[in-house]
Amino acid sequence: MEPIRLIEVKKEIFSDNNNCAQNIRANLKQKNVSLVNLMASPGSGKTSLILQTINRLKREVNIAVVEADIESLVDSEKVAGAGVKAIQINTGGACHLDAVVVQKALDNINLEEYDLVFVENIGNLVCPAEFDIGERFKVMILSVPEGDDKILKYPLMFSVCDVLIINKIDYLPDEGFDPARLRERALRLNPNIQIFEISCRTGADVDVWCNWLRDHIK
Amino acid sequence: MEPIRLIEVKKEIFSDNNNCAQNIRANLKQKNVSLVNLMASPGSGKTSLILQTINRLKREVNIAVVEADIESLVDSEKVAGAGVKAIQINTGGACHLDAVVVQKALDNINLEEYDLVFVENIGNLVCPAEFDIGERFKVMILSVPEGDDKILKYPLMFSVCDVLIINKIDYLPDEGFDPARLRERALRLNPNIQIFEISCRTGADVDVWCNWLRDHIK
Repeated sequence: MEPIRLIEVKKEIFSDNNNCAQNIRANLKQKNVSLVNLMASPGSGKTSLILQTINRLKREVNIAVVEADIESLVDSEKVAGAGVKAIQINTGGACHLDAVVVQKALDNINLEEYDLVFVENIGNLVCPAEFDIGERFKVMILSVPEGDDKILKYPLMFSVCDVLIINKIDYLPDEGFDPARLRERALRLNPNIQIFEISCRTGADVDVWCNWLRDHIK
Repeated sequence: MEPIRLIEVKKEIFSDNNNCAQNIRANLKQKNVSLVNLMASPGSGKTSLILQTINRLKREVNIAVVEADIESLVDSEKVAGAGVKAIQINTGGACHLDAVVVQKALDNINLEEYDLVFVENIGNLVCPAEFDIGERFKVMILSVPEGDDKILKYPLMFSVCDVLIINKIDYLPDEGFDPARLRERALRLNPNIQIFEISCRTGADVDVWCNWLRDHIK
């Protein structure tokens, strides 16, 4: 085996958005609204999870959705088509959301009318993990085709999340994905993380996630 | 359908790294070394493509690999295990590579000995698209399970790349992925883009990509 040279690059300093996030959190708590910050790679099923959750909970829970993308209205059109209020944020190149941007989106929602606001973050396992946007829960999705080694490469995301949703389990068995191995690594890194194994395509065990969510936003 | 509110956020200013990139490009050209900047989402098959390409070309082409990750040596260990020189860059949180960092990695390679240097960028469809790292070719991978709509959401990446590799075609047919539709959209956005449809898992058509690469690094 060839020797490996390791070069460490100093971590970028991100501007502090904690005050803004704390204001959002306090305001939402007072109004009894839960904000869910949904993070994942591109194509792992963030919008599908939101749509499946809307379908199952919309009779009991008033839901609004903030969709973030570099550009395009693709996702917010799907959400609005499901009869739910959608706010689209186009970041024009930025690879994550911060609390200031989320506050701008929330300014367009009459929070008195809602119980739950999903924020679909930019498809990225890196920077979104570093920004508190005032959420009640951080939820990440990892889809089976991405491979179970992503926790080794993007550990911060797995460390900060309250919930890990393993999506696309209809692709199992997959030689590059061992759910038990991922579960063990995730719990070692983050002992309190809730893990759900679902398929938004087939609907498998989406109810289990929805039940958890409904119980935890009360 | 609910009305959609659109909020535009001013694009972040990224520091200019063009001088450094131009120096890298001139130096590599003089030494007859081709740098390939390989970009994709997490889990789309960047490392697999590099390993498959090494297997097919290493008898004819001297290859070195620069692996970038937030942390971990997972990928460079695989590359080194294939008998190829590997340089690992750990960005400690940064979500893209810039030319300055790539220059630091190249300082550890005796360029006289190599024909081809792969740089495996951070798994991210956003920021890596904005940074010239002095490469000869920008190559992106999109894998079938990610969905063919990613071009609508991350158009810059598809616009700047010389090559689009559609990986994991063994997952076709997939209701969320129409290769013809993606091809049409990609060519409309970027008429000169080269498109290959392959599977690193089964090996399907990896040779077609390798033949193109061998012909274009001469």
